[in-house]
Amino acid sequence: MGEKNFDLITLGEIMLRLSPPNYERMTRGDVFDKRAGGSELNVASGVALLGLRTGVISKLPQNALGTFIKNRIRFEGVSDDYLIYDESDDARLGIYYYENGAAPRKPSIVYDRKNSSMTKISLEEIPEDVYTSTRMFHTSGITLALNKNTCEVTTELIKRFKKGGALVSFDCNYRANLWSEEEARAAIKHILPYVDILFVSEETSRRMMQKDGDLADIMKSYTTEYPVKVVCTTQREVISPRKHNFTSTIYDARKDKFYTEQPYKDIDVIDRIGSGDAYVSGVLYGLLKYDDVEKALEYGNATSSVKNTIPGDLPASDLREIDSIIKNHKAVGPTSELNR
Amino acid sequence: MGEKNFDLITLGEIMLRLSPPNYERMTRGDVFDKRAGGSELNVASGVALLGLRTGVISKLPQNALGTFIKNRIRFEGVSDDYLIYDESDDARLGIYYYENGAAPRKPSIVYDRKNSSMTKISLEEIPEDVYTSTRMFHTSGITLALNKNTCEVTTELIKRFKKGGALVSFDCNYRANLWSEEEARAAIKHILPYVDILFVSEETSRRMMQKDGDLADIMKSYTTEYPVKVVCTTQREVISPRKHNFTSTIYDARKDKFYTEQPYKDIDVIDRIGSGDAYVSGVLYGLLKYDDVEKALEYGNATSSVKNTIPGDLPASDLREIDSIIKNHKAVGPTSELNR
Amino acid sequence: MGEKNFDLITLGEIMLRLSPPNYERMTRGDVFDKRAGGSELNVASGVALLGLRTGVISKLPQNALGTFIKNRIRFEGVSDDYLIYDESDDARLGIYYYENGAAPRKPSIVYDRKNSSMTKISLEEIPEDVYTSTRMFHTSGITLALNKNTCEVTTELIKRFKKGGALVSFDCNYRANLWSEEEARAAIKHILPYVDILFVSEETSRRMMQKDGDLADIMKSYTTEYPVKVVCTTQREVISPRKHNFTSTIYDARKDKFYTEQPYKDIDVIDRIGSGDAYVSGVLYGLLKYDDVEKALEYGNATSSVKNTIPGDLPASDLREIDSIIKNHKAVGPTSELNR
Amino acid sequence: MGEKNFDLITLGEIMLRLSPPNYERMTRGDVFDKRAGGSELNVASGVALLGLRTGVISKLPQNALGTFIKNRIRFEGVSDDYLIYDESDDARLGIYYYENGAAPRKPSIVYDRKNSSMTKISLEEIPEDVYTSTRMFHTSGITLALNKNTCEVTTELIKRFKKGGALVSFDCNYRANLWSEEEARAAIKHILPYVDILFVSEETSRRMMQKDGDLADIMKSYTTEYPVKVVCTTQREVISPRKHNFTSTIYDARKDKFYTEQPYKDIDVIDRIGSGDAYVSGVLYGLLKYDDVEKALEYGNATSSVKNTIPGDLPASDLREIDSIIKNHKAVGPTSELNR
Amino acid sequence: MGEKNFDLITLGEIMLRLSPPNYERMTRGDVFDKRAGGSELNVASGVALLGLRTGVISKLPQNALGTFIKNRIRFEGVSDDYLIYDESDDARLGIYYYENGAAPRKPSIVYDRKNSSMTKISLEEIPEDVYTSTRMFHTSGITLALNKNTCEVTTELIKRFKKGGALVSFDCNYRANLWSEEEARAAIKHILPYVDILFVSEETSRRMMQKDGDLADIMKSYTTEYPVKVVCTTQREVISPRKHNFTSTIYDARKDKFYTEQPYKDIDVIDRIGSGDAYVSGVLYGLLKYDDVEKALEYGNATSSVKNTIPGDLPASDLREIDSIIKNHKAVGPTSELNR
Amino acid sequence: MGEKNFDLITLGEIMLRLSPPNYERMTRGDVFDKRAGGSELNVASGVALLGLRTGVISKLPQNALGTFIKNRIRFEGVSDDYLIYDESDDARLGIYYYENGAAPRKPSIVYDRKNSSMTKISLEEIPEDVYTSTRMFHTSGITLALNKNTCEVTTELIKRFKKGGALVSFDCNYRANLWSEEEARAAIKHILPYVDILFVSEETSRRMMQKDGDLADIMKSYTTEYPVKVVCTTQREVISPRKHNFTSTIYDARKDKFYTEQPYKDIDVIDRIGSGDAYVSGVLYGLLKYDDVEKALEYGNATSSVKNTIPGDLPASDLREIDSIIKNHKAVGPTSELNR
Repeated sequence: MGEKNFDLITLGEIMLRLSPPNYERMTRGDVFDKRAGGSELNVASGVALLGLRTGVISKLPQNALGTFIKNRIRFEGVSDDYLIYDESDDARLGIYYYENGAAPRKPSIVYDRKNSSMTKISLEEIPEDVYTSTRMFHTSGITLALNKNTCEVTTELIKRFKKGGALVSFDCNYRANLWSEEEARAAIKHILPYVDILFVSEETSRRMMQKDGDLADIMKSYTTEYPVKVVCTTQREVISPRKHNFTSTIYDARKDKFYTEQPYKDIDVIDRIGSGDAYVSGVLYGLLKYDDVEKALEYGNATSSVKNTIPGDLPASDLREIDSIIKNHKAVGPTSELNR
Repeated sequence: MGEKNFDLITLGEIMLRLSPPNYERMTRGDVFDKRAGGSELNVASGVALLGLRTGVISKLPQNALGTFIKNRIRFEGVSDDYLIYDESDDARLGIYYYENGAAPRKPSIVYDRKNSSMTKISLEEIPEDVYTSTRMFHTSGITLALNKNTCEVTTELIKRFKKGGALVSFDCNYRANLWSEEEARAAIKHILPYVDILFVSEETSRRMMQKDGDLADIMKSYTTEYPVKVVCTTQREVISPRKHNFTSTIYDARKDKFYTEQPYKDIDVIDRIGSGDAYVSGVLYGLLKYDDVEKALEYGNATSSVKNTIPGDLPASDLREIDSIIKNHKAVGPTSELNR
Repeated sequence: MGEKNFDLITLGEIMLRLSPPNYERMTRGDVFDKRAGGSELNVASGVALLGLRTGVISKLPQNALGTFIKNRIRFEGVSDDYLIYDESDDARLGIYYYENGAAPRKPSIVYDRKNSSMTKISLEEIPEDVYTSTRMFHTSGITLALNKNTCEVTTELIKRFKKGGALVSFDCNYRANLWSEEEARAAIKHILPYVDILFVSEETSRRMMQKDGDLADIMKSYTTEYPVKVVCTTQREVISPRKHNFTSTIYDARKDKFYTEQPYKDIDVIDRIGSGDAYVSGVLYGLLKYDDVEKALEYGNATSSVKNTIPGDLPASDLREIDSIIKNHKAVGPTSELNR
Repeated sequence: MGEKNFDLITLGEIMLRLSPPNYERMTRGDVFDKRAGGSELNVASGVALLGLRTGVISKLPQNALGTFIKNRIRFEGVSDDYLIYDESDDARLGIYYYENGAAPRKPSIVYDRKNSSMTKISLEEIPEDVYTSTRMFHTSGITLALNKNTCEVTTELIKRFKKGGALVSFDCNYRANLWSEEEARAAIKHILPYVDILFVSEETSRRMMQKDGDLADIMKSYTTEYPVKVVCTTQREVISPRKHNFTSTIYDARKDKFYTEQPYKDIDVIDRIGSGDAYVSGVLYGLLKYDDVEKALEYGNATSSVKNTIPGDLPASDLREIDSIIKNHKAVGPTSELNR
Repeated sequence: MGEKNFDLITLGEIMLRLSPPNYERMTRGDVFDKRAGGSELNVASGVALLGLRTGVISKLPQNALGTFIKNRIRFEGVSDDYLIYDESDDARLGIYYYENGAAPRKPSIVYDRKNSSMTKISLEEIPEDVYTSTRMFHTSGITLALNKNTCEVTTELIKRFKKGGALVSFDCNYRANLWSEEEARAAIKHILPYVDILFVSEETSRRMMQKDGDLADIMKSYTTEYPVKVVCTTQREVISPRKHNFTSTIYDARKDKFYTEQPYKDIDVIDRIGSGDAYVSGVLYGLLKYDDVEKALEYGNATSSVKNTIPGDLPASDLREIDSIIKNHKAVGPTSELNR
Repeated sequence: MGEKNFDLITLGEIMLRLSPPNYERMTRGDVFDKRAGGSELNVASGVALLGLRTGVISKLPQNALGTFIKNRIRFEGVSDDYLIYDESDDARLGIYYYENGAAPRKPSIVYDRKNSSMTKISLEEIPEDVYTSTRMFHTSGITLALNKNTCEVTTELIKRFKKGGALVSFDCNYRANLWSEEEARAAIKHILPYVDILFVSEETSRRMMQKDGDLADIMKSYTTEYPVKVVCTTQREVISPRKHNFTSTIYDARKDKFYTEQPYKDIDVIDRIGSGDAYVSGVLYGLLKYDDVEKALEYGNATSSVKNTIPGDLPASDLREIDSIIKNHKAVGPTSELNR
């Protein structure tokens, strides 16, 4: 497997994210912070920060905004080899506006992503060599949900990467504003036969996937109904918009074993967006690097927890930092207060 | 009543508020955030955000600063029809400087409001039609306290609005740096015979108004001594400059009934200034829209709690947000974490 | 005429404008300045600043971005009475990205305005009373160009306002990225029979409108072929992106007379966008207030010149400032250096 | 003379200066740049930067704003030994708002300085030792003009410093918004018998001081009518708000000789405020350090010219920079483009 | 003692501190906050803010960065009389980069201070008069640790100040990245015979100074082994990077008595750096002003606690604020929420 | 040649650049803009922006600052394959401080680059494969000048790349603060036998290289004395710090022909740093892409001129922009004012 060019290729839309600074509102103020984000880019970026080779397949407008996003992707250490540029008159970059929360004000999001260049991606534009170039492929339910075209393209890509020898990772990432539960369920059932590693929240399992029983049973069910090998479910406790607890449970079907650990407590939430993607990146790193579910759990919980403290969607923690966070999390007694 | 042009007209000074950003100090740094604020504008703005028609009577200097304030008032959805412009050489905009707190540092305020244009407002400048144009009139003890002139003008206005058919709302809002307890007590006793809705804190009742007994007795006493119909008292618990709990009690003399609800807990205080005014705006909205003290209480507690999370004096929450905060406050079990 | 509620109503799309601060590029940097803009709003705002009553007809998304725009419109002193809110799932605010120029780098613009809420405006949504509420109606070729729907709605509105007793003002404002010269010519020929005041550049007259001959002949031809009464053509000399000269010529068909004046020289261009709209606002003010083409010319040249020094699309000069700029422009010898 | 503690003590009001950044307007925007300024502080600061020991006599409010000003004064290298703090309830810091210009928009200023703590300064508060502690004393017509009290105190101080052995420098600095020409003329005639070095513009000489004849005659007249030894008049040519030329003429009565030099051409004006005060500081430095009018002229022209490129009132150029600017100004042929 | 010019002189390196704003990372973003800091400057500044006369001995590059630091020192109210300027080609200002933390992300620091001008300070450059000019001298282990030269110079200075009649205060301030525990122990043992007031953490006592037993025994041991009179040990409890508790214990050998008080709880940590130095400044103020260990403890705990809420290394609390914080800390029952 | 991985590899130090925003001074203000820069990175970045594959050899500290630089390099589209990380205790990133100029204030620079990690680069760290991986290698006199080690390493690298089949490009880039003219001359004479493309200013030719005669003779002399094929000399006319003219002359020895063109006039200088490097990048692009000296001249002049309008060292213009600037430069008559 080592001879492949990439450890991980992801597929997804990359958007411009615009946020009022500090706790200002979208409806006021003179300035937006300007950032790049998108679930699958966030995952690729997190894995790249930890030291593996990653790339992202996406379609961007051929204009200054597209260039901004491309530059940011490279800044993150993710390859831009598989970016496709939309030169049509209709080319546009999807946007989302994000506003921070503070109790009792919830964070809020306004999407403006319809008709983005990504929704027009076609199989023909994607170079054939990509399917055999990576050890793992990852995408999420958001990419399926964008429109009918991305649903078809994504489903086909999953098959081709699988055939090309890649492990397939999939995050359900259900978004009620993009599609209905029925549409989501149908589309996801189509791709589950190809998925090796599945990320799905308890709520999504129960509501959208219509599972019931206790969480362990639910998680296990994906591996009995489909050839899924690893199922990951996060447990986030929202004490307030600025204070969370976090841990997760992973089921390893090969060993028929559940893994979890003590939650990270009292996380100072600076920016919650992308912490779920950071979790995926930590888990995938653990699997790609060590093929060890316990390590995957530890990396996932650490990368997700610390992401909450980083402004923007994209993670910003390298391996040294993550290792030190894991070590502190496991430590008993006082640890040094500063990294000098 | 529906044929009146305005639901609420308020009277008060509007100031320029200058604050160092983040947690910087007034004594340092190169920048001030520049905002508009003033207790009665804050109230009018809060009610306008919830969907009613409001205006503010005030006097501003006829210069660029006055224009800034006027523009901001309009931005807030409040009518500028009753703004009066001071073209004299002495025209000035009152200023206050505000610095955030963080335990154990308290927030602090420096006032520079003496001799502002507002202190020179005269009855002759106020158009006669205003007195019959609104369903409710609101002002506060700050306006009485500015100087002898505003005390007289305000007292006269209260009478004229009353005569014009408006309900009169009054917030004691005692400020020790503006006048003594004796002066305040005398002036307020003059206007209480005209007040329908009274806002007064327990501490002000006890110290400035020299009441004693338990809180319920105190609140009730205003309605027996004067024709006050509704008395509102807030309960704020300051855990730290950045963490408050908040609820309130309202006494409805018509039904001889007290209303309260569970406090909002662990409010993330971004900017505490104006949260009292936001409370008034929520209560007045409840009374104006529903003539229902229980709804008034719910709106008041919600608008006040969420205002603490908004930078600046002025509220920024529309009806949809307030309704959703009330719903969450009453909800049992987990609620969605983001507004998407 | 004085009994109408508005002096001017305009119709057009209002967009979010995002610009990198200073001379930073769209492709880099962490921040966008966030402003509102749109040709016809700019015109209404300029006329309001000079003291007349104006409003704007537009359609905005019913979300936080739409609220931001509404608040900004009110901040500018323009009425929000005729704003229509789009509650559909497809609701979106058009965006444009603007980057400053500096020789030899030209300013540049990226548009993302397709499928905006404004393109879906319908006659049914516009209250009938508007057509008789104003002394003048103004729109531009941009509104015609947005899509087939706005072209039809705009054409119909022009007729209705005309019938309602308003003067009709129209700015050709040809944008090659919105439609072809052929499409533009056809649509504009449809509405010219209803236009009283026409703004058209020499280049647009020659290329899009296929006129030839000298400029005077061209300008005059609009008034002979159509019942146009006043034709305005600006002369901008771009010395560099940061230094322009500006004047204009107006032809008054009623007097069969051309008006012009010495150009404003060496204008310090801080932000060129909206200076054409500011010109329209000055001319319309002169016509509305004084019914005097010479005054219209002076106001138009002054409002346009000074707009170049104001960041953002929207003008920011009140009557006192414009009068003082006109006075200085005509002055011989040194004038005071500062406005104290 | 060398045994005195200070080379220069100045007397004047120090204000908070608030300006919108870049070319934003006072009437808009969310931020003010926060700076300290005041004519006589500017002079003391300029002389301190060049290496001499200076202090300033002023009265500041005993609050956070006063502390900010005190800290800034010290930052500038000026002694705070003679600052007086106003602990009264009426204590306030004078403010002025300043907005940049760009052709054809002029810079503009709004003052809010009435009733500031400085206007209440009294002789009793000023320590007796100051009068003999300095080689030179400087103040300006602004200090005379603030109110009747400062006029009396200033006049008395001039006498006491004169008696204490200091040279007296005075800058007419006529401000029409502070007093009438008649009031100014009367007050200044009172103090001219004590002045050694006089700064007066040609326009002020002609209008306020009612002089006529050519400039040389006017300048000379001060030295024949009064015991003035040196008269300085600046020549500023305002090409645009962002481009000035500058030079000056100095008359040395002791030698009966006029000095001038080629103007600094095409000065890039970033912030024009304080460039007159910087001129005074350069001249006084030349006189204090070298007792040489020619050097005073060169330093004055250089310090003034370069001040125009510095944001804020206060100069920021040390001796090395000023010497290098003088050298470049005199140089023939190309000079190095950067200071490395 | 009263006749000395200074109450406190400190010796130490002063650095440029560069930090990403808000919670941005060093590895990203376009801006650094630019501040001055250094343990011994922080101490001098804290004592100056409380009203005593302080100065700092340090060596700075003779360039714009050195000037920035000098100006900031003066801004803080600390004398620049004993700053030495390095005009050599190798002159440089030490730098450190600081990034805030948020649980589970720790704050982190990158140093770039090697070969700074301070490391080349020599005895010859320090004016002889300084040794007898102050009531107290303070330095820390950091200054000893910079390099061999500063270790020697510092040791000699301690002796000279002692001989000159000053009390000697020393803060161990062990930094593992500057020297080994062995080196530190040897150097500190050399200077302890001259120290009157010692600041040492429990961890440093145990590890670097190789003490054991309970804390009281350890603290006492310094006064029995050496002529140390006062030993101070802080107790900081790090609940999270943004929430600390803080108190301290002081042993007074003269009275053989330990002092402590209830900790400050739930301190909102905005910037933790310099809070240890602020503690030293409060203790030294208490000793210098009142020669009272109990007061020293109260001042030390208050100045340290509140420093955590101030951005940057340098404290910003004057005597009035500290006194009010002490009063609140001791108060029972609710206190006023704002400083108006 | 087409089979090589890179079109251009450069070698040089990459520094952190810190600048006060706008026209603020290094000695004041609270903020530094934080950017990456370095002559040879600037060249690689310019060529990458135009569409070729480039990389840079440099040594960076293994810390957060090194990571920031690496990320920025990738953002620019330059490969980080040949970056070497310094894990030693002495690892440091060189810094320079840059302040803008405005007439008569010159831009100024303070360097703090001694002992940076780059100065310790060794041949052993550089992978052997690099020497045959590129069509061209570029470095400058700055890299030779850093210290004795970089002089030796650079000289050896030039030989190895030459041997590996790369063209060698060299920019004299003489910096008087890094070495003497004698040292520079000796070192450069050592490498000229390997140089194909030489960049040298007229002043450097005359002073450091001790050439005389007219410029043409001087340029030609390099090609007769050494096997240099192309000699490039820029002509910059500094009208003021904010206004330059620019062109260049290139001598093609193969054709024995000189090329030049009309200067770019009245360039608006936003940031002059890196415009020389941008020139090199344009020339090298012309040679690499077209092997055409005339095209090289056009690209060089355009990339350099437009770089002056871009904040920071690094260029930001892609091929489309540069082509459009060249087209405008050659155009006769008016061109469009905006890029829409």
